[in-house]
Amino acid sequence: MSSHHIVRDDQEPALIIANGAACSKNLMDQLLEWSPLVIVLDSAIQRVVDLGIKVDVLLGDFDRNFDPEAYRELQYPLEIVHTPDQNKTDLEKAFDYLINRGFPAVNVIWATGKRADHTITNITTIVGYREKLKIVLLDDHSKIFQLPQKFNKWYTATTPLSLIPVGTAKGITTRNLKYPLTNEALTLGYRTGSSNEALNDGIVTIEHREGDLLLMECFD
Amino acid sequence: MSSHHIVRDDQEPALIIANGAACSKNLMDQLLEWSPLVIVLDSAIQRVVDLGIKVDVLLGDFDRNFDPEAYRELQYPLEIVHTPDQNKTDLEKAFDYLINRGFPAVNVIWATGKRADHTITNITTIVGYREKLKIVLLDDHSKIFQLPQKFNKWYTATTPLSLIPVGTAKGITTRNLKYPLTNEALTLGYRTGSSNEALNDGIVTIEHREGDLLLMECFD
Repeated sequence: MSSHHIVRDDQEPALIIANGAACSKNLMDQLLEWSPLVIVLDSAIQRVVDLGIKVDVLLGDFDRNFDPEAYRELQYPLEIVHTPDQNKTDLEKAFDYLINRGFPAVNVIWATGKRADHTITNITTIVGYREKLKIVLLDDHSKIFQLPQKFNKWYTATTPLSLIPVGTAKGITTRNLKYPLTNEALTLGYRTGSSNEALNDGIVTIEHREGDLLLMECFD
Repeated sequence: MSSHHIVRDDQEPALIIANGAACSKNLMDQLLEWSPLVIVLDSAIQRVVDLGIKVDVLLGDFDRNFDPEAYRELQYPLEIVHTPDQNKTDLEKAFDYLINRGFPAVNVIWATGKRADHTITNITTIVGYREKLKIVLLDDHSKIFQLPQKFNKWYTATTPLSLIPVGTAKGITTRNLKYPLTNEALTLGYRTGSSNEALNDGIVTIEHREGDLLLMECFD
């Protein structure tokens, strides 16, 4: 079993393992190393157990004849959280659970791939948690997070950076991007800022005034 | 080489092979069988050639030192369409190409998976082509298309059906869904109709008055 219980500091991000495509072992191991709490969503638990990973919380609506109790001894101690509310996804319920426990941040893996409806819902649902939880979605090709209204980060030149609005984001102004924006609007489906990149080594600045804007650091 | 040149009827959907994750051979073979025209986007051509598939058009901006001429003889006859416009994605340029050639419909594979920025841009970009081109995106877990304002289709009970708005869709009313909607709004990131399903064997009706709404038929 991998151990992830080295640091028990709730200021470190928790880790949610969702139910999409698995990521590389390398990415998972990096995240497990520092996560003070690991939550697995619903029937993904079997795939996680098969990888020999110890988790802390199993959360889901447990429909489709799935029996969570089968994992209680196998993963002892394991907290089982039954969340039957059909108005939220299991991922949203896991975010709510972490907020209630006082976690400030979470990394999420296995949230993309396989079903496209789950992928697009998982990615876009993070915008509702602005101010409440710092969420980063990761897979083998992507790192996705919501931009604050003023964002600064150092990047090396040519780093791919995609600005993806969820709905419409307005008043977007950037510095040090190859395709700069000046007080412009982006609208999903019509005009996105996909496949932009850092122009020079140095700080990239992205400001927006209104709406929800995701940054995706992606690579082939 | 697979042959897809049985029917040369431009009323059949063309096929675009984009540059995301490959789909199953089974899905690809089904689509190749009936496609009167096959377009491959940019550097995906190498992966397509490796599968022994004959294509008709190679389209892209051909950046990153990619040489399309290397494929001209290998795939003879091959039309090479260089589309350097940086304001559109290669997928949008392929849609424009098909509209100019008078095609009414297209299926798209390899448009999802790998980079999340490409996946979300490819899926949502289809809403801009309403009335101009009937587009269906397919992968091994999903079939995605834009809903007309009145949609009727026969489904077997429990078929998973996800209603995903691109932005906000308003005035949505459904019949024969497990979680029905009555003159309701859905907003991406805040309230989507993901993971709904057909209630009984029979016609499912989905109407919406305003905005862009996708239907995703997905399965695990």
